[in-house]
Formats: sequence, C-alpha cells, structure tokens
Amino acid sequence: MTKTGSTSGEFDIIRQAFAPLASAMPGALDLLDDAALLDVPAGEQLVLTKDALVAGVHFLETDAPDLVARKLLRTNLSDLAAMGAAPAGYLLATAWSPDCDDAWIQRFADGLRQDQEEFGIALLGGDTVKTPGPKTFTLTALGRVPRGTALRRGGATAGETVYVSGTIGDGFLGLMSLTGKLPAGAVSKTDAEYLEGRYHLPRPRLALGQRLRNVASACLDVSDGLVADLGHLSEVSGVGINLYLDQVPLSDAARPLTEADPALVARLVTGGDDYELAFTAPADLAGEIEAISSELNLSITAVGTVVEGAGVRGFDKSGAEVVFDRAGWTHF
Amino acid sequence: MTKTGSTSGEFDIIRQAFAPLASAMPGALDLLDDAALLDVPAGEQLVLTKDALVAGVHFLETDAPDLVARKLLRTNLSDLAAMGAAPAGYLLATAWSPDCDDAWIQRFADGLRQDQEEFGIALLGGDTVKTPGPKTFTLTALGRVPRGTALRRGGATAGETVYVSGTIGDGFLGLMSLTGKLPAGAVSKTDAEYLEGRYHLPRPRLALGQRLRNVASACLDVSDGLVADLGHLSEVSGVGINLYLDQVPLSDAARPLTEADPALVARLVTGGDDYELAFTAPADLAGEIEAISSELNLSITAVGTVVEGAGVRGFDKSGAEVVFDRAGWTHF
Repeated sequence: MTKTGSTSGEFDIIRQAFAPLASAMPGALDLLDDAALLDVPAGEQLVLTKDALVAGVHFLETDAPDLVARKLLRTNLSDLAAMGAAPAGYLLATAWSPDCDDAWIQRFADGLRQDQEEFGIALLGGDTVKTPGPKTFTLTALGRVPRGTALRRGGATAGETVYVSGTIGDGFLGLMSLTGKLPAGAVSKTDAEYLEGRYHLPRPRLALGQRLRNVASACLDVSDGLVADLGHLSEVSGVGINLYLDQVPLSDAARPLTEADPALVARLVTGGDDYELAFTAPADLAGEIEAISSELNLSITAVGTVVEGAGVRGFDKSGAEVVFDRAGWTHF
Repeated sequence: MTKTGSTSGEFDIIRQAFAPLASAMPGALDLLDDAALLDVPAGEQLVLTKDALVAGVHFLETDAPDLVARKLLRTNLSDLAAMGAAPAGYLLATAWSPDCDDAWIQRFADGLRQDQEEFGIALLGGDTVKTPGPKTFTLTALGRVPRGTALRRGGATAGETVYVSGTIGDGFLGLMSLTGKLPAGAVSKTDAEYLEGRYHLPRPRLALGQRLRNVASACLDVSDGLVADLGHLSEVSGVGINLYLDQVPLSDAARPLTEADPALVARLVTGGDDYELAFTAPADLAGEIEAISSELNLSITAVGTVVEGAGVRGFDKSGAEVVFDRAGWTHF
C-alpha cells in the first residue's frame, strides 16, 4: 500500500489501522511491497469488480464511518455474488478529506475488520491519498469461480421464470427514513431501524449466487432498482420480461406503507439499493429453486416471466399494464 | 462497468469512450456484466496493484487529459514491473468533476487507448461516478508471474551491489520546468520538453522487471525518490545501503543543471517521480546485469552497496558522508 500526499502522522494511523486487515493474507506482503500476490487454483477463474463511493453523492456525510466502509465492501461483494463467485480478497483506495481525523479513519478500518470476519476475506493492498474534495473510496473485490460457471446477464430465454431473493424496496425506504421523507408515524421505530439497516448494510447474497451456478440461466444484483436491472438483464439476454407487481416480495416493515399508499410499490421497484439477486431459470427447475431457498433459509420469489421481445413490462394485480417513470407509474 | 450519479447523456459518452477499450478482452464481457473474468494460467500467480490520483494533488489541473490517463496507467504498470510481472489488464474507477465535458472524457480515453497498444493490455471493468470535488481516478493493474518468481523488497543481503535503471531526477526537473521553478534559460527548449515528458509519461520498466526474475535479490520502483525508496528496500530487507551520489546516473538534460548547481543532485535523489527500477544483486552477477542492459538497450548503473546495518547513507565523490533533508543535503 503506497501513500502519497499524506503526512507521516497520517502514515502512522494508516499503517496502524489497515496493516492488521491484511495480516491474514500472505499475498498482501504486509502491505510493504509494490503489489500483492494472489494464487488462483487451476480450474478456477478470477472474478473482478470495482466500485467507487463519493461522500454526499453515494453516501450521506453524516453516515458513520464503519457503515460507509461496510457498505462499500458489501456492494462489491454483491457484484461477486451476482456472478456466482466466492470472495477471495480486496484492494482499497481511500482519498481522505481534510475533516477525516484519526478517529474517523480508525472507525472506517474497524468496519472493514468486522465485515472481513463475516465474509471470510482480507485486504490485499491499495493506496491512500489526501483530497481537498469529498471523501472518495474505491474498492476492487476479487472472487473465484470454477472455470466456465460464472453467472452472466445474458442467457435468459423465453418461457423461463424470473426470480428475486429476499425483499425489494427496503433500502429505498431506509434512505427515505434517514432523510426524513417518510410521513411522521408511518413506521414504528423498530421498522424504521430495520429499513435504515437495510440501506446502510446490504446483505450480499454470496451463498445464493454460488448455489445458482448451473441453475440460473442469467443473474445480476439489484442495485439500480428492480425494473432498471431487469431491463439490463433483458437487454443483454435479448428478451422481454413481464413483471407482476403484486408478486414483488415486500418486508413486514414495508407492507404497511404500501397498504396505505399502493402507488408506493412503483417507487420500491425503481428505487434501488436492494442488493438482492434477480435471476432467471427454466420453469422445470421450480422445485430446485424451492429447495435452494429452503437450504439457505432465504426467500426466493417468482416475480415474472421471460418472453419474446424486448424491455420490461409491468402488470398490476388486475392484469392491466403499468408504465414506470421516476415518480411512480401510470396506467395505460 | 456500473455507473452512478451520472446522467444518461454522460452514460452515452462513457460507453462510447470506454467500451472500445475493453473490446480486446473477452473477460471484460463488453463492460455489460456485474464483474469481469480473468484466467490465470496454471503455474502463474496474479500480481495486483492499485493507485489513486487526485487533481491538484497528484497531477496539475492544467495537465492534458490524455497525459493524466497515461500517467495513471504507467505508474501502476511500474508497480507491476517492480514485481517482475507481465501486465494482464486493468480496472478503472473515474470520478468526474463538473468541469469534465465530453471532450475531456474522450481525450482521457484516447490516452488510455494509445498506451493499451503500447503495453499490450486492455480494460477489464470498473466504475464511473460524478464528484463535486476534484477529478479523482483510481486504477487497479493486474499482472502475472510464474509462481514464486515475483521480485520483492525484502531479500537484499550485505555485500550485494545496488543498481538503478535509466536516469534519476528527470521527472522532478520536469515538474520544476512545468511549474516555472527552473532558472530562466537554464535548459534548452529541447531539454525542457524531454524533462517534462519524463514527468508526464513515466516509462514502466516492464521488460527489465521480468528479466530480473531469479537475478535481482530485491527490487522496487523509484516513485518517492531514490533515497526514500532505497530506504524502503533497506527496511524490508533488514540491511543498510551505502549510496554513492557521484555514481547516480543523470540524463544529458539534467547534467548541465547539476554542473551549475552541484547541490541540486541531492534534490534529484529525493525528488521522486522517476519510475525507474532500483534493485540489488550479488556482486558476481555483474556480467549478467551488463548483458541484460545491453539486451534491453537500457542503461543500468551500480550506485551503491548493501551493508550490514540499517538505513541509507549517502557519500559524495570525496568519500565524505552527506545527510539528506527535504531541502538538499549537508555535510557532517
């Protein structure tokens, strides 16, 4: 891990905060070399993804440093999950703004340490610099898959079923709650905490992704919003998708809100920050999908069908088509 | 390559500018998937490095976009060179400031394209976001080495010779020239252009690094300054280094400046931005080093010896020890 534009005092806190995160990874070379080393077993392929977060753009300036770090790591792990990969390590580049004191940096590193333990990975290397602008973090996550088994966005064919893991819209509602945009008293304190937790701490569906190798025909993670991401899948696969809105799985915390305001469902399926997996599979694998759901103790819900054509079409409970826009949807 | 905080217009230019950079790399999946795939042949190890550049901190706001992009790529390739690795691909995260228009972004991508051809690599994936702050770029470079042959900073032993490739101080003088800090008329226009070129466009010594596998006992690239980097090598290797300042190789453009101001040599060996390789090898390999220099048509100069002890000690032509500080050196 090199260091530029930093004072030697900062170098101390960085070494103190980050070197322990690399200690379990022999190839990190204690962050003392020009680069890191990683072994990829014969028969496996490396899977690589890289995301950037900017303060004030991708997270709130008021967010706790450990939560920022953990969300950064988890969103990248979610990309690995979408490809069916097992995590292998990560590199981190941090650009600290003038207001980042030692305590902020240490809490950021503490968040990473906590998630490293949860996900069984460690730091391999990176860079740390100063910026006069907003805090900016980029993370490169590395994973591995048996050669040729990576899940892809292309591969869905007409007649298949569209599934989604977990529940949709909680991250969006969490952000609404954190920014004071939910009607006063609309959710209980417990539900608000659950929703905010879903916004701050995505749950990368790593076990599901790996279990879906050779099962799902196409897969991605839901980060931009279910409708937008199914749109990506349909575009790369060259198919259309019919999405049944009443089948979209909602959490117990979200359901009272949509019962009070049914139009809210449209915002939940376009809001993003879900980090669930959406995937397609042949109809005759329904039993296998059910078994996987039960094995992983994770709900998996059929929400649509793959059809000939292009794009995502939404249908309400009555079978009427709805059109999505940023503000919600309108009936034809 | 995902995209957040961007308008769809920006998405167009990004797709137009960056997707072609990935077309030669099947594992980039046309930047359409959640992550990229990379094969690592059996018997090889992956080498990974990641650097960040912030406008106004690591490059000048007035620097041409293609030169910024190429320097970003080349400084990372220099880290691969220092490990003896052959480049395999890269991931890129870009945070565009409000003043980055389509033309700026296209020129940035054009710079990458030019260097991809020169170094035989391609884009694998990454992320592109907006920032209200200064332009910030991070690049993760991937390379490969036969297992167990990576060059490291540790490994130097007393009695060995310390070598450096190319010439030292040109990048520092180039920055001085670009920022108007060289005395008027001190260098010719041709020499100024050469020095500025050395600052803008490091020459990662990839062929040398690979050739030094199983030859050099320790190696790194000179980015922080020759004295500081030899200090890193000595610290990790647990040895001392005697550096003979009159043996430090200077370019034809730098030599007139040091003849006019002999104290300048101290700034050249502490200035940084050289991106040459510094390495150690047993004295009986001197002939082999000479053969490598001749084979690669690249000067390699013995500048010091590895000794018992710790730290870097500098000696002038008369054999008197000199002490370095940021401003230059003083005699004991």
